[in-house]
Amino acid sequence: MALNVLALNGTLKSSSSTETSSTARLLDLIAEEFKSFDAVTETVWLADHDIKPGVTSDEGDGDAWPAIRTKILGADILLIGTPIWLGQPGSVIKRALERMDAFLEETDDEGRMVSYGKVAAVAVVGNEDGAHHVSAEVFQALNDVGFTIPANAVAYWVGEAMGSTNFVDLEETPDTVTTMVEMLVRNTAHLANLLQEHQYPGEQ
Amino acid sequence: MALNVLALNGTLKSSSSTETSSTARLLDLIAEEFKSFDAVTETVWLADHDIKPGVTSDEGDGDAWPAIRTKILGADILLIGTPIWLGQPGSVIKRALERMDAFLEETDDEGRMVSYGKVAAVAVVGNEDGAHHVSAEVFQALNDVGFTIPANAVAYWVGEAMGSTNFVDLEETPDTVTTMVEMLVRNTAHLANLLQEHQYPGEQ
Amino acid sequence: MALNVLALNGTLKSSSSTETSSTARLLDLIAEEFKSFDAVTETVWLADHDIKPGVTSDEGDGDAWPAIRTKILGADILLIGTPIWLGQPGSVIKRALERMDAFLEETDDEGRMVSYGKVAAVAVVGNEDGAHHVSAEVFQALNDVGFTIPANAVAYWVGEAMGSTNFVDLEETPDTVTTMVEMLVRNTAHLANLLQEHQYPGEQ
Amino acid sequence: MALNVLALNGTLKSSSSTETSSTARLLDLIAEEFKSFDAVTETVWLADHDIKPGVTSDEGDGDAWPAIRTKILGADILLIGTPIWLGQPGSVIKRALERMDAFLEETDDEGRMVSYGKVAAVAVVGNEDGAHHVSAEVFQALNDVGFTIPANAVAYWVGEAMGSTNFVDLEETPDTVTTMVEMLVRNTAHLANLLQEHQYPGEQ
Repeated sequence: MALNVLALNGTLKSSSSTETSSTARLLDLIAEEFKSFDAVTETVWLADHDIKPGVTSDEGDGDAWPAIRTKILGADILLIGTPIWLGQPGSVIKRALERMDAFLEETDDEGRMVSYGKVAAVAVVGNEDGAHHVSAEVFQALNDVGFTIPANAVAYWVGEAMGSTNFVDLEETPDTVTTMVEMLVRNTAHLANLLQEHQYPGEQ
Repeated sequence: MALNVLALNGTLKSSSSTETSSTARLLDLIAEEFKSFDAVTETVWLADHDIKPGVTSDEGDGDAWPAIRTKILGADILLIGTPIWLGQPGSVIKRALERMDAFLEETDDEGRMVSYGKVAAVAVVGNEDGAHHVSAEVFQALNDVGFTIPANAVAYWVGEAMGSTNFVDLEETPDTVTTMVEMLVRNTAHLANLLQEHQYPGEQ
Repeated sequence: MALNVLALNGTLKSSSSTETSSTARLLDLIAEEFKSFDAVTETVWLADHDIKPGVTSDEGDGDAWPAIRTKILGADILLIGTPIWLGQPGSVIKRALERMDAFLEETDDEGRMVSYGKVAAVAVVGNEDGAHHVSAEVFQALNDVGFTIPANAVAYWVGEAMGSTNFVDLEETPDTVTTMVEMLVRNTAHLANLLQEHQYPGEQ
Repeated sequence: MALNVLALNGTLKSSSSTETSSTARLLDLIAEEFKSFDAVTETVWLADHDIKPGVTSDEGDGDAWPAIRTKILGADILLIGTPIWLGQPGSVIKRALERMDAFLEETDDEGRMVSYGKVAAVAVVGNEDGAHHVSAEVFQALNDVGFTIPANAVAYWVGEAMGSTNFVDLEETPDTVTTMVEMLVRNTAHLANLLQEHQYPGEQ
């Protein structure tokens, strides 16, 4: 069965911005690689949507989250893409992660959250410094709310200390990034296939 | 000269919410204590304002940040208040910190950011776990953008692991919290007074 | 096939200390639960061993790491146990994680680290505050060096803010901890069994 | 009055290692700059000393910490130098920070820890990625145990993502690093002088 991948692009810019998004470039590389594994990627550009602050699954009038949440629940793989600001995850992706706090209470009769069996991976870009920490924050948040993290589940690029080059402006994708993207996709698809056939057992 | 304190309340709720805010309760305790040091506190309830995502000081039409930024620049002390979600700072306070990234470029002729000489402190509340990490994230972000951190610059409360009590619902303020609040205020006011009279030197 | 679990106890105390270890108590609860899944746990009490600082797999004369590394490579599941100090992982467990940096270069012909297919989980205890952040640090470190993280892969206990109660001194194990321990073990064993039969594919 | 700076070098290597230390190079740059501010730097190369695990100020026979602690208490400025491993602070510097946990109980009659009035700064180097997070961990740990953090209190260098260049092997110090070193020293010395003359008030 084909795998469904949902990519959340947490860039601070809207998709109509005249500036291109480094996060989008990295997510595109990953989506392209997923095709080789019979996996179809849909991307949600978060800054285009009015996701209300809160920790329930529906914060009422005008809240864009319920529709995004439905896409997450329909996916086998969740791919979190975010830029780094001040060495930390951006506020746009934080908002989305925060909304998944609601999964803690959304369990089946056997105590399994709605996210159980779904696999998550992370894509991070910045001018400089912060990718490991961003992945730490995202791994922990996602794991707390029920996602499974495959081996080497992060692809990233950052420049030298205090650099100002954007990933989107690199003429070529560095080989190291290509290697990471392939590894991330291979591992994520493998684990998603296993869990699709063998869901976690619940409590008795 | 009296000290001006600006408190940013990063609760996810708007001030018109029917639920009371634990972050507000802790900020109020701190504001009350600041009075003894001839310091006047103004609080901005961030979720009431439409702060656009971005890393410039003005993200255009409808952006509430420029007015908040003006208040920050008029204050001697910046007090960051935030709830904990998933063990991490909330997305509302992250948005505000991210906007201060612009300070990195906003320097005087001697290389000092607009924030130089200002002192910052942190107030954190949660049902359980996460206060130290939240303060780590906030200290580093604020320090990067030019703020000074006095000794013991955090006041917090969290309950026992997996607890669900809110700080706002405690019948009495725990003595430990009172002690921390007093220490935070005493140290913050002391350092703000020193720096008000003796600004950092610039590069020659 | 039975699963082998290796638990690393990162308490700062040696096993001959007159003080009992809260980390040991939590690891024991987990080990006991693993028995129901036909999984046998061996525990290494790290502070009893002279693990040299460094990032190779053998730092020479007197280095206790090579023997511990052999146990890790023989296990299906790695369980990281650590106390919290200053809201962060202790230095003893940091030393062990740091030594696994060497796995980054220890790959087979298809680019898979020696840790591929192994599943990891985390046990954290403290008087107060810090468990989520400790798990974030450990998840990221372990994932970077090739481990897979199952859903809800952390069990923890901490007391109320500024508390001084030790987990080892609680008269009864809180129900919330028991639930987490069961979940951790169930998920970890499930994923370890899957990966034991279906190792990650390598690069072609 | 001249300022005393104590630098702790948290490299994993001993000073007799045949490999040179990137952390040492950065600390040396900072120490040289401190001379212009009439500040004398002493450096302790931590890996040369047998610092026992624990959270008291003296862990008994053979513990090297009491002597290092005495040096810290004699300094006006504490400079924490560390390499990055797995995107996090190294285990050697973690051990030293952990030992300062004891300061929490070492207060005078007015509730001020032995570290009050001392200013701290951080120097971080790595092949790639992690400096901001390392400074976050160190700032929070040091602030909890009573140190004051001046504006822009970190100097760092890291290379591009997945790079393997060491700071110690750079032919020239990048201008950005020189600028950061100057800023760190200028701000740290200024604040240390202020606090030397105007210690924090205690509780009444």
